[in-house]
Amino acid sequence: MSDDSSARIVRAIKDWLATAAPGARLPTTRELTARHGASPVTVQKALRALTGQGLIEARPGVGTFVPASRVNRPGDRGWQIAALGPMDSPVDGTLRMAPNDVVALHSGYPDRTLLPERLVRAALTRAARGDISRTPPAGHPELQAWFAAQLGTAAAADVVITPGSQSGLTSIFRALKSRPLLIESPTYWGAILAARRAGAELVPIATGPNGPDPDQVARAFAETGARAFYVQPHFANPTGAHWDAGRILEIAQAHGAFLIEDDWAHDFGIDADANPIAARDDTGHVIYLRSLTKSVSPALRVGAVIARGPVRDRILADRTVETLYVSGVLQSAALDVVTQPGWQAHLRSLRRELRARRDLMLDSLRTHAPDVEVTAVPAGGLHLWLRLPDGTDVERVVRACEDEGVLVAGGTMWFPSEPSGPYVRLTYSGPDPSAFPGAVRTLGKAISQRI
Amino acid sequence: MSDDSSARIVRAIKDWLATAAPGARLPTTRELTARHGASPVTVQKALRALTGQGLIEARPGVGTFVPASRVNRPGDRGWQIAALGPMDSPVDGTLRMAPNDVVALHSGYPDRTLLPERLVRAALTRAARGDISRTPPAGHPELQAWFAAQLGTAAAADVVITPGSQSGLTSIFRALKSRPLLIESPTYWGAILAARRAGAELVPIATGPNGPDPDQVARAFAETGARAFYVQPHFANPTGAHWDAGRILEIAQAHGAFLIEDDWAHDFGIDADANPIAARDDTGHVIYLRSLTKSVSPALRVGAVIARGPVRDRILADRTVETLYVSGVLQSAALDVVTQPGWQAHLRSLRRELRARRDLMLDSLRTHAPDVEVTAVPAGGLHLWLRLPDGTDVERVVRACEDEGVLVAGGTMWFPSEPSGPYVRLTYSGPDPSAFPGAVRTLGKAISQRI
Repeated sequence: MSDDSSARIVRAIKDWLATAAPGARLPTTRELTARHGASPVTVQKALRALTGQGLIEARPGVGTFVPASRVNRPGDRGWQIAALGPMDSPVDGTLRMAPNDVVALHSGYPDRTLLPERLVRAALTRAARGDISRTPPAGHPELQAWFAAQLGTAAAADVVITPGSQSGLTSIFRALKSRPLLIESPTYWGAILAARRAGAELVPIATGPNGPDPDQVARAFAETGARAFYVQPHFANPTGAHWDAGRILEIAQAHGAFLIEDDWAHDFGIDADANPIAARDDTGHVIYLRSLTKSVSPALRVGAVIARGPVRDRILADRTVETLYVSGVLQSAALDVVTQPGWQAHLRSLRRELRARRDLMLDSLRTHAPDVEVTAVPAGGLHLWLRLPDGTDVERVVRACEDEGVLVAGGTMWFPSEPSGPYVRLTYSGPDPSAFPGAVRTLGKAISQRI
Repeated sequence: MSDDSSARIVRAIKDWLATAAPGARLPTTRELTARHGASPVTVQKALRALTGQGLIEARPGVGTFVPASRVNRPGDRGWQIAALGPMDSPVDGTLRMAPNDVVALHSGYPDRTLLPERLVRAALTRAARGDISRTPPAGHPELQAWFAAQLGTAAAADVVITPGSQSGLTSIFRALKSRPLLIESPTYWGAILAARRAGAELVPIATGPNGPDPDQVARAFAETGARAFYVQPHFANPTGAHWDAGRILEIAQAHGAFLIEDDWAHDFGIDADANPIAARDDTGHVIYLRSLTKSVSPALRVGAVIARGPVRDRILADRTVETLYVSGVLQSAALDVVTQPGWQAHLRSLRRELRARRDLMLDSLRTHAPDVEVTAVPAGGLHLWLRLPDGTDVERVVRACEDEGVLVAGGTMWFPSEPSGPYVRLTYSGPDPSAFPGAVRTLGKAISQRI
């Protein structure tokens, strides 16, 4: 019995179902066996899968049928609007799944060719044979220890394992409660949304290749009474900025505030290495965030928050109420991958590959989109942050590209308030770099037509 | 090279490290090879694992060492209290991991002998070979379809996959915003905490073996303006109550309110089957919650929220901000398990096993703890809800049992406000039923000494 041939039969029957009349009878198992050249066991496996999905109905002794069409009365659900009250900011954008026939330069996730897929499959297979019981709410102790050792100065007990760094962010913002929060502008849209939903009042601080201006940060702390500042000092999303956070940490300390250091791109250094300020803090002012999801595998939703003192306990309490604990299988597999010798080799080849892709994209921009300003050549990360000529209608450029089969991300969603100009984020970690020059030409054309 | 012998060496070195001086040198690889009768490759694998955890330091060409002890200045973190503000309700209790030498009658999770471990390992192994890419935020479409088909009337698009039902609960409560929320009393402590943290004002409704009194529910809706009621009509945690929610749904509909139907124990029917009211609702008033974590595996953190209309979109938006998406490997493995023929066979044997354990626990109570009142013989679920004689100090009973190596859960945490009496929850799904009679004797003794 082969999984593949059963999946093939499932697909064939689904195609047939798409045009079949409600109540119609399926061919018998014998007929399907003959038609697909498969064993009865394989055919029955396919039928079971379809039955499980409610797509067909087996009537024992009679046959298998297309379900009689159910009348789906949507009903009047207008009452829900009154019951629900005002709406939060909507969610959309870069999570969109791209169809196969477009060039996807919009996503925040690296293409699968940039991931250690063989290590991940082997690790998952080993994890399936290992301990599959529940782990403590703070995580698998050995994975906690690994994250702590990565930072050098942390203890395993400071580490809270999360199902990805987005979950870490939401818990951090909830633990800090609804207070004014300093936040870089532009910055990661997922952080903006998470902070807003936690009730925080966002105080945008302009940021650039050298990070935010310390004087502005000090003034904002003093004026707003904020007790936290969310920063990405290492290969920031979207700007790629890489800067030393030492001075900003001193300012946060002077104001009795937390510095939330999001090190999501730790494994994506190209010309530099991420050098977390959390490793130099022994005062509990830094709340550090790291993820393995993007660099190891989207299947391994594993990240970590490292924090010291009461704030760590509050974050853990929030995580516990939120998910109780993270799947131990994912934690074991993640630990397995990052402690293999193959992981270091992968990181080295990833660095070379990211450099080649970044430089190809930069070359393409110089050649095919001369009106675009690359705000800075990023020393790491996955993205270029492009400023379009003043007055460009970003949304129209994005739509014009999409019409030509090229997905790019309009910059607006990375700004906590008004955008400081027309920006686009371009990912050089998507699929098929050979399509970069052509896609950038499409972008360049769309821009030149909108000026 | 064997994983087992490498793990054995890791354990041995950890034991040695527990008493080793900071800076001490480890035996050479050659010595370790001889001592443990293992290959150099296996020894090096063990050393790599320990290095990865920061427990030892390799100095190439010199040797391997215990790290020099770092001075861990905890520093003054009192400033954090001011930065953090008031504290939410704390979290603790039934998540506690029991050591091996106690009888654990406190946990909310079934023992591993009650889980389809073979099916789960095989499914995880297959999932490791399959698609390990990112899934859409609402989940794997085939798993959505399976959950929808389970309910009969739902469409796949109504389903939002969550990393366990606790995450579904927190998103539901956040989507409903901070309004008065009707909630059974007693009810699942995780729901109480999640609702409180979402800012809801809890309105407790007394509940018993036949569910809440419809007149009280109608009055509470009218008086408080609540727009939702959280209920467990099927084998409730902690009471085991099993009741028809038809009348309560009508009342919710009449008040333009949601009924949140938590069907966590769907797979744990003993004398009855869970019969979700969500299957009979076509008006979008029921928000339905189901989990596979407890019945399939704690490693497969997979659950589903099924809802229709704008509320479904708001729940999905919250899930997206919270975790972006759920690991596709866990979703594939969960779907694989529940569509195997072995899954139905497992559920049948689980039912027999739960019945035998429940009845053994009831017999033990009659014999060894005659002062205890079993509030109702549950028709399903994992727990007995016991009322102790009036005036019993529950916390002292719990501690007295723990001193004798028996863990039971005091009932207070299941009440959204004052407890209606001295209660204890006893799990009949924990490890080793042969220990039940002795453990119940310990409980009976502890109670008779406290009256």
